[in-house]
Amino acid sequence: MKPTITAFAWVPAFARTYVRDMRPRWAFEETGQDYAVRVLAGDAVKSAAERRHQPFGQVPSYSDGVVDIFESGAICLHIARAAPGLLPDDPGGAGRAEQWVIAALNSVEPFVMAVAVNDIFEADRPWSKDRHPKVIEDLRARLADLSAALGDRTWLDGDTFTVGDLVMVHVLRGALGGPIEAFPNLAAYVARGEARPAYQRALAAHLANFTDP
Amino acid sequence: MKPTITAFAWVPAFARTYVRDMRPRWAFEETGQDYAVRVLAGDAVKSAAERRHQPFGQVPSYSDGVVDIFESGAICLHIARAAPGLLPDDPGGAGRAEQWVIAALNSVEPFVMAVAVNDIFEADRPWSKDRHPKVIEDLRARLADLSAALGDRTWLDGDTFTVGDLVMVHVLRGALGGPIEAFPNLAAYVARGEARPAYQRALAAHLANFTDP
Repeated sequence: MKPTITAFAWVPAFARTYVRDMRPRWAFEETGQDYAVRVLAGDAVKSAAERRHQPFGQVPSYSDGVVDIFESGAICLHIARAAPGLLPDDPGGAGRAEQWVIAALNSVEPFVMAVAVNDIFEADRPWSKDRHPKVIEDLRARLADLSAALGDRTWLDGDTFTVGDLVMVHVLRGALGGPIEAFPNLAAYVARGEARPAYQRALAAHLANFTDP
Repeated sequence: MKPTITAFAWVPAFARTYVRDMRPRWAFEETGQDYAVRVLAGDAVKSAAERRHQPFGQVPSYSDGVVDIFESGAICLHIARAAPGLLPDDPGGAGRAEQWVIAALNSVEPFVMAVAVNDIFEADRPWSKDRHPKVIEDLRARLADLSAALGDRTWLDGDTFTVGDLVMVHVLRGALGGPIEAFPNLAAYVARGEARPAYQRALAAHLANFTDP
């Protein structure tokens, strides 16, 4: 069966482009693999049937009839292994690509999300304003380390765009307009990622998916 | 060269057993692979030389002379691929094992860490007490989903312990004594993980590493 991912029928405007089905869509486009989307409307993602694919009630999940998995990072790694384009052939390069996928998800995204949690999801809580500088400071510290690691390279591993860049760029998009602007090399890195034709095709498909305004 | 990871010469008592060199140590033990430890004292982990291996100034990093990576999750996956014992042979099972590694790191650990950040690292901030119930509630919601996914299985994928369980058990240890106690199947799952002889060997080596009291 054709590789199939799940996506939401609708999300609020502020969440569009950030929903994680963007990541496998982009990976499919970079590797030239055809894929299908199973669109979930309303509360379907929270149903018992869908939780068998994604226990946390989120998107995306992935199935090709043999491999049936969730977690955007795991899905992107699986897509990257199925066709050339996102994973170097040599063990050292493949290891570093995987390392950057996990660094994006475990060492950077929690700090990006902490800002979103404080400033959006806890905006009405009494601590939100007081705590804002602390979550910004924590994120800035991570971005400073990442900025130093990237240096003046085009991509994290040099000239070759990998699945590690794909996930890192999408994670960093969540910090645009915030502390990332203090690190011009990171902002330019994200812009280079977004400028890739495969990203643009994935973005168009992601947005076309939302039938409501 | 023998696979080598980094570890700290000393950490405060509250951090012992939680430091992430525990994860590759356990993976080496489960797969019967010999390994070496490069112990970093004082601020060495923050030096420019070490940041070339671990840009965020943390442990562990890993090198075997060919593959040179950081991120405990990526290191555990690499160890799991190098010898049998932690990764099923079939593509479906291997995909699920990798999915659970990433779920532990991206869907569970950020919520465990949010409690630690609030209750330990932000304990002296004016919002810490007020915010405590919120971070507990968020973690409890994730644990409820994970508890339902585990059900009455021994391990996340059934009878076979995988690298996904290894990382998930170590992540969940950070929630022991907290909301995890409301989910007896998760608490028993963590206890089963900790009871494994390979875990006990890794733990003994991890603790023996700290030369100071």
